[in-house]
Amino acid sequence: MTFELDQRLANDTIFLDRVGDVQIRIHKNANVLWFILVPETNEIEWIDLSQEHQDNLQLMIDQLSLFLKQTNSFDKINLATIGNVVNQFHYHVIGRSQSDPYWPGVVWGADAPLKNYSEAEVDKVKYELALFLAK
Amino acid sequence: MTFELDQRLANDTIFLDRVGDVQIRIHKNANVLWFILVPETNEIEWIDLSQEHQDNLQLMIDQLSLFLKQTNSFDKINLATIGNVVNQFHYHVIGRSQSDPYWPGVVWGADAPLKNYSEAEVDKVKYELALFLAK
Repeated sequence: MTFELDQRLANDTIFLDRVGDVQIRIHKNANVLWFILVPETNEIEWIDLSQEHQDNLQLMIDQLSLFLKQTNSFDKINLATIGNVVNQFHYHVIGRSQSDPYWPGVVWGADAPLKNYSEAEVDKVKYELALFLAK
Repeated sequence: MTFELDQRLANDTIFLDRVGDVQIRIHKNANVLWFILVPETNEIEWIDLSQEHQDNLQLMIDQLSLFLKQTNSFDKINLATIGNVVNQFHYHVIGRSQSDPYWPGVVWGADAPLKNYSEAEVDKVKYELALFLAK
């Protein structure tokens, strides 16, 4: 199996880390803290992923949820895999706040202006997440 | 712990079945085949659910996904737990089709007119699902 990251995911997200062959990426839209998990597979649906991918993903979903929770910065965690537009399997773990521009709506298809991260801000998330995962 | 179903979930969905203390409900909007799983708990986030609830939910998510898949009627399965509007924990398993009125958008916050099920149509889903789960 050859795996190539979907062009839209490559454009919209930044690589942070990997666990096994699951990539942890962050969406470039800084309005919310939006992680995207991408297992390196050509399967489309959760139910078709290997047990190993499902287990690694669930572990990372739980870890990212705990990471979001311990920051005390978010009112709700949104978890989803949709894939209507980008078919390549990817899983969203998003920290939502009553003060973010999409609240209480969902982030997909919302039309508030994008907010960009600085390189230093992405590095900060990357560093804090690495510290958290190393615990 | 006393559990009372959120009023909005009660209004928007119909009870189909239960597995342990996880309710399987169907959204009244017949534009998509939209299951909603409600574990009888007061926890809000997936990460805070008991291991038993997580295991039962994952089992039902997988079973409902397989149920949707075997109908050959859907182009994509959408899985999500959001909870920005209805805080009570609930999990969406939705059969999506390129011909449904929300495609390729998400169903949450979309404004296409609702389509109602007849009682017979709900009974049919209930019966087919019960048959499938009993396999």
